[in-house]
Order: sequence, then structure tokens, then C-alpha cells
Amino acid sequence: MSTTKAVIPGSFDPITYGHIDIIDRSANRFDELHVCVLRNSSKSGTFSVEERIELIEESVKHLDNVTVHHFNGLLVDFCNEIGAETIIRGLRAVSDFEYELRLTSMNKKLNHDVETMYMMTSTNYSFISSSIVKEVAAYKADVSNFVPPHVAKALDKKFN
Amino acid sequence: MSTTKAVIPGSFDPITYGHIDIIDRSANRFDELHVCVLRNSSKSGTFSVEERIELIEESVKHLDNVTVHHFNGLLVDFCNEIGAETIIRGLRAVSDFEYELRLTSMNKKLNHDVETMYMMTSTNYSFISSSIVKEVAAYKADVSNFVPPHVAKALDKKFN
Amino acid sequence: MSTTKAVIPGSFDPITYGHIDIIDRSANRFDELHVCVLRNSSKSGTFSVEERIELIEESVKHLDNVTVHHFNGLLVDFCNEIGAETIIRGLRAVSDFEYELRLTSMNKKLNHDVETMYMMTSTNYSFISSSIVKEVAAYKADVSNFVPPHVAKALDKKFN
Amino acid sequence: MSTTKAVIPGSFDPITYGHIDIIDRSANRFDELHVCVLRNSSKSGTFSVEERIELIEESVKHLDNVTVHHFNGLLVDFCNEIGAETIIRGLRAVSDFEYELRLTSMNKKLNHDVETMYMMTSTNYSFISSSIVKEVAAYKADVSNFVPPHVAKALDKKFN
Amino acid sequence: MSTTKAVIPGSFDPITYGHIDIIDRSANRFDELHVCVLRNSSKSGTFSVEERIELIEESVKHLDNVTVHHFNGLLVDFCNEIGAETIIRGLRAVSDFEYELRLTSMNKKLNHDVETMYMMTSTNYSFISSSIVKEVAAYKADVSNFVPPHVAKALDKKFN
Amino acid sequence: MSTTKAVIPGSFDPITYGHIDIIDRSANRFDELHVCVLRNSSKSGTFSVEERIELIEESVKHLDNVTVHHFNGLLVDFCNEIGAETIIRGLRAVSDFEYELRLTSMNKKLNHDVETMYMMTSTNYSFISSSIVKEVAAYKADVSNFVPPHVAKALDKKFN
Repeated sequence: MSTTKAVIPGSFDPITYGHIDIIDRSANRFDELHVCVLRNSSKSGTFSVEERIELIEESVKHLDNVTVHHFNGLLVDFCNEIGAETIIRGLRAVSDFEYELRLTSMNKKLNHDVETMYMMTSTNYSFISSSIVKEVAAYKADVSNFVPPHVAKALDKKFN
Repeated sequence: MSTTKAVIPGSFDPITYGHIDIIDRSANRFDELHVCVLRNSSKSGTFSVEERIELIEESVKHLDNVTVHHFNGLLVDFCNEIGAETIIRGLRAVSDFEYELRLTSMNKKLNHDVETMYMMTSTNYSFISSSIVKEVAAYKADVSNFVPPHVAKALDKKFN
Repeated sequence: MSTTKAVIPGSFDPITYGHIDIIDRSANRFDELHVCVLRNSSKSGTFSVEERIELIEESVKHLDNVTVHHFNGLLVDFCNEIGAETIIRGLRAVSDFEYELRLTSMNKKLNHDVETMYMMTSTNYSFISSSIVKEVAAYKADVSNFVPPHVAKALDKKFN
Repeated sequence: MSTTKAVIPGSFDPITYGHIDIIDRSANRFDELHVCVLRNSSKSGTFSVEERIELIEESVKHLDNVTVHHFNGLLVDFCNEIGAETIIRGLRAVSDFEYELRLTSMNKKLNHDVETMYMMTSTNYSFISSSIVKEVAAYKADVSNFVPPHVAKALDKKFN
Repeated sequence: MSTTKAVIPGSFDPITYGHIDIIDRSANRFDELHVCVLRNSSKSGTFSVEERIELIEESVKHLDNVTVHHFNGLLVDFCNEIGAETIIRGLRAVSDFEYELRLTSMNKKLNHDVETMYMMTSTNYSFISSSIVKEVAAYKADVSNFVPPHVAKALDKKFN
Repeated sequence: MSTTKAVIPGSFDPITYGHIDIIDRSANRFDELHVCVLRNSSKSGTFSVEERIELIEESVKHLDNVTVHHFNGLLVDFCNEIGAETIIRGLRAVSDFEYELRLTSMNKKLNHDVETMYMMTSTNYSFISSSIVKEVAAYKADVSNFVPPHVAKALDKKFN
């Protein structure tokens, strides 16, 4: 089998322990793992794309087959560009499931060769989302259970 | 990376186009794919375990890295036995999702090294289940959209 | 437009206010409404098919375009037999939705001309099911909020 | 039975093959089918109401009992105005189901005579939504699987 | 057992019969019930926090152990401040369930001593939300089934 | 306020850490907590009612306001008998939610004074069920993460 490449896409605004859990668990199942920050034209983030990439890189530096990218376009086009045949996504909840089913079907129609594989987010992290973490941080509450120290620091700097 | 091995478990009573879709799509992502018929002590099947294995083997003979097994025990024990680090399962519906989330959490507790990855069943096949196919076959209706010809024949023989 | 015919299928073991609500609301939208008791080979009912039909007929006698049938086979075959082009079903809950989506897809494959239309069960009746009514009746509790008097009487006779 | 009239409401911004599937399948079940673009004060659309109507009219010109309207108000008031007794809506997913259940209950309270009937969107189209189509079009990807040619052209003109 | 205190949080923009149902049903299960309007920095409401408090106070004046507050911060901090050990929330739908599960897990991590308890909204009110009530009111339709008279009056004044 | 009494019903066949979590968390919110093993005529359990009660009593002996009962009848009748005004139940998943909503509505109709309150099962235990524990035990796998030692021992004795 040739080199296997998988992509983990997201907005990572910012990265949480939930994201890191999925990255850690998939890293050793593929030769290369590509984390991709998708720019979403309709939403301007709390962190700039550059800041998000820095926070991710710091979070995955213990994994030597992971690289971090950003992309302004459709995910399947990014996969084509780097020659990845698999997309990895985390599933937390029923509502995730429906959205993902739709996305998978759409991506299949756009590029039949790229396959999406899902992992269930560990129950310890299933309630964490970037937006809920930001709300907690905005009220100066403790986020150390939800994000690594360097992200907590970045949140603190952003909100205070 | 060493040889990658994945397991696709199920009762396959009998195998349908839904199962075959998942097997086809995962076969080229792993070095070895092991389809495993789990004997479920609480349910006696329509087809014997031997019949089910034969029907699966006929269905996957175009894939040369797929082997078919049966196992009487916990799935994680089977994975250990053959040295597989990944379980592949299809997700069709929200109700699948919840059951699978539970199973994944349980398997994680029983064996932390085995990871479960999910693929969304193609929308064309998402409504097919072995039991609904058997109900249709029992009324002598056409099952050729749901199972391959050799399975249709076996169903016909079983019910008529 | 030619005569419109719709079918409301079910096991009706026994008929409840939930079923009657759907029948009442659809009766005046079609020229003929056909209530069909499907014999389910895998389950033997609490009431015989003949008893169920009697209880339904008593419940719908105020509607003069409704007739009651029983059928041992696939629903789409019954539709063909009487020339009905529409199946009506009630939706109570998310779990109903998934099961029905599957059934609709299957029926579409078996007979492309028959269309299934759904009505949401009134919130007042959405928690009622034949089986929960039987459980309540078995403990001699009051079922008058869930079934009409003649069904309550039949339940009482069956369980006491 | 007098003339039967049904309404298919939506924002249709723009119309997709998912919408057209529901319109096609319901058109021959009612004497008159009225497609109604609801202006939603809180959202300004990508296409103007006039453009949306044009795109719908072009999509349904093969059906001679379908007319296209727009309305600024509550759906039940539109039904009253044209004397329609049935609302038709497509159901794609569990999340649709809940929203629709709520809407049906609300509409029932506001006008007891209007009944809502649902059809399951064909699995081929269940992942399509106007907003996901617009996102794909914005990145200049191929939308020909999701909308008819004249809508694809309008999307291309809007985004490029 | 010492004095039991429970908190019912929400945005109450404005209070509906759905909210009042939950307040009524929990008031006699605790010594003190504290209704708390959470200011949500990201959303500016239709009614000011002061108006919302007035509308709630008028709605609960028949219950002498209920007091109304507002708070700008995390709910668990409010609970700490007044010494409440229980949060009460209504559950209407599956989508509520997932959101609430996430919130409960988050609150547990932030303050282990505060427990959240849920009540199912009565089926009569399960379809009512503040936002749907405002949409109906904006079109001058009758809201008397959804909110008490003094809220209906306030809505009328706001929208006309 | 008079003495508050709550009931936690279930089949407890056998009790798991999931049940114990809910009992622990509710015990200090009520003066008396009554755990009630409901005999379910349609299912014969793995453990006898007497065995189940013993296993529960051993599990809750650190809580001095908890007593264990069994009852053959409708839950609302048991509540009446002991004068309890509150039923406590754990919610683990969306499918639980729908079943519980139905049960709550039914119980409300049967006895308007008894209120059901829900707690979300801790994410650590949300995947545990008595039946899944029994399946694991039947294959002689380790159940120490799912049930207390005395229950593990009872399972071992039952299955080996």
C-alpha cells in the first residue's frame, strides 16, 4: 500500500482537548496526518487563522507525522491538492451526526475518491466546543479542563 | 508503519448491499480487512454461521485482502487475537449512532488500544437491514435491489 | 382527478385515540380511506385480527368513506390490490421518524407509484401506544384518556 | 369532494432538486398545488423574491396545476386567503422533524382547519439544502447534481 | 435538611406559558425558587432585562417562594452567590436534550456541587418558544394561547 | 415544607455504577429516597427480585435516607402508597429521552400530583446498562469499571 494520508479539518477557533483527542487517536493510523484550518468566509473568528495555526502546532508538536495547514475553499479540493484519500472527523452528538451525514454525502458527490471516517469523541470531552470554551473564558472562569495551558493563556489574553 | 489490520464485525444474517458497500470502501484503506461474524448467544439466526460465512465469502471474492471469520466472544478479544488495532463500522441512522457510541465507550474501557472508526452508509443503502430484507423475501417480493444474486437465491431457498 | 384512495396501515392491537386522531384528520382529504390491519407473522397479538377489526369499525362508524381490511403480505401489494396511491402514517417521535424513513425508502423501491404521507400525531396523543395502554390496563388502571369506551371494555374483558 | 388545494411553503433561496422532488411527487395528489415563497423579515436572501419565483416557475413549468406565489405573513393566513386546507412539507432529517413538529402544533393552534402533511425527501436529495448549494457554488465547484441547469446558471452569475 | 434553594435560568425574552409551567411545577418542591434572567452578551433581546423581569414578576406573583433576578456571568457563579444547590431546566425536545447534556457536563466541571434537574415540558406547551411567539406577534396574530395577557399586551406594544 | 420523598424506579438487574451515580446525587436533595424494583411481568430477569434488592442495599448502605422496595404494579400507585411526590430518573441518551417523555406524559395523566425529575447520567457512566454488563460478564471479561465488587461477584457466580 502506498503512503496513507488523512486530513482533519475544522475551524479550531481555538483548538480544544476534544480536537487533540481525535488528532492523537488517528495520528498512528496513517502515515501522514494533515490538520487543516478551513477559512469560513461567513464567520470571522475570535482568533486569526495564523493564531489558530500556532496554537494547533504547539498542541501537536509531540506527533511527528502531523502538519498544520489552512485552506480557503472546499475540503475535497484540499484533499486533492495534497493527495489525501481520507477525511477524519470527530462525532460528539446526534446533531453532529446529521450534519456530518449531509456533508459526507455532499463530498462524495463532489469527489468520489475521498472517504470520510469518523471517531466518537471520548465521553470526557464530548461536551467541549470552541464556542462554549470562549464563553467560559469571557467570564474569567477556569478553562484548564477544556484546553491546554498555552491555549488557556491565549484565551486569557484575548478576553482580558 | 507496520501492517494495518481492521475488523468489520456483524451478524450478517445475511449480508446485504449495505454491508458490502462498507467493506468495499474500507478494503483499500488497510493492509488486511477481517470480516467477523459474531455469534450472538441470545439470538439464533435465520442462516447458520457457516451459511453466513459462505455468503460473505462469495460477496467479497473480488477483494484479495479480505478474510472472513467467526468468533464466539467479545469483539475486543477477537481484535487482540489477530492483532487488529481498528474496528470499522457503518453508521446508517441516529439510532445507530447512540448504540455505537455506547459500544465504543465500552470497548475502550475493555481494551484501550483498539479504536473504532465509522463510515456513513451510502444513502442508497441506508434503509437496508438484514431483517427488513428477510421480511420482504418472506412475502416472495423482489430483493434484487438489496442483496447480490447469490444471497437472493439463498433467501428464496430458505423461505420457499 | 380520479377517485383518490389512501391506506392507513397498522397492527391496531388495539386501536387508540392516537390512531383515531390520524384517521379523523385524513378522512376528509381523500375520497376513500382504507384502514388495514397488517398481520405480522412474527408477533401474535393480544387481540385477534377479527377482534381488532371490530374495535376499529366501531371507532370509525361516524366516517362514511372509511373501510377496514386485513392483509397478510407487504403493504405495497395491498395498495396495488385496491388501487390506492397513497399511504398515510402518523409520526409521534424521532424514533418513529427513522423507522418510517427506512420503510418509505423500501416501499419506494418495491413500488415506485405508491407515495407515503405523514401527519404529526397531536401532542395530546403522542405518548399513547397500544402496548403502553395494555400495560396500564393489565394493572386495572383507568384507560379512558387513551382509548374509546368500547376499547376500554374490551381491554378490561381481556385482562380480568 | 370539492377542489383540493395544497400549499408548499419555503424560502427557496434558490430552489434545489430536493424541493422539486417534493413538488413533483405531490402535484398529482391535489387538484391545485400552490408553491409559496415566504418572505422572512429576519433574513435577507441571496436571491430577491422575484428572482426566486422566476427560478421556481422555470422548474415547475412541466406541471400544469402548480402556481407560484409569495407572501409576507403567517403561512396559515396564506392558506386561508387561497382556501387551501393542506400544507405539504418535506422531511429530510431528525432535526427537521422536531422543528416541523413545533411548527405544526403552532399552526394547529392558529388555524385548526389547515392540516400539514409530510413527505420524506428521497434519499438521493436528503443532503441538499439551499445554503450548502450556495457554499459549493461560491467556491466555483460543480452544482449540477444539486440544482437544475437554469438555477446553476443563476448561481454562477450571482457568485462570479 | 437545611433550606433547599433552586434556580431556574433563562433569557425569558419574553416569558411564555412554557416557562410558567416549569416554574409552577417546581415551586412547591423547594423552599426557595430563584428565577434568573441571564444577560447574554452575544444577543441583544427584544425586551430589556428590566422589562423581562417585570413580565416574570407579574407571572409568578401567585407563588410566594419565588424571586426574580438577573445576572451577568456564568450560571454556576450565580448559584454560588445565593447558595443554591440545584438548577431546574425544562426539556422540550431531543435537540434541547443534547444542548442540556453538554451544559450540565460543563457546569459539573466548573462547580461539582451544583446539580441540574430536568422536567419535561407539558406536551401542551412543548412547541412554544419565545422566538416563535415573537414571530407570531409580529404578524399581529393571536398569541393568547402561548403567553399570559400582560405579556400579550407587552408584545403588542413592542411590535405595533 | 413537609418531608420530601422521592422514588427512583428501575429493574436494577443488576444495579450498576450508572444507577449508583444517580442515587448518590439525588439522596441529599430529598428527606427520603425510595429505590423501587419494579417487577415487570413481561420479562423474567437474570437476578431474582430478592437478589436485586440485596445487591442494591449493599450498594447504598452509606446513605442513611435510602430504602429499597419492590412493587408489582404501576409506578404512580407505588408513589401514592408511600406518599412520594417526586420520581427521579436518569437520562443517558436521546432514545432515553423519548421513552421518558412518553412515560412522564402517561404518568401525569394517571396521577397529576406526581412529578418526574431527570438527572443526566455522568458521561463516565452513560454507556453502561445492566444488559451490556451482563453480556460482558457472560464472556468472563472484567466488569470492575461498570459495577461495584459485590455485584461483579454476583455476576461471576451467575454466569460461571
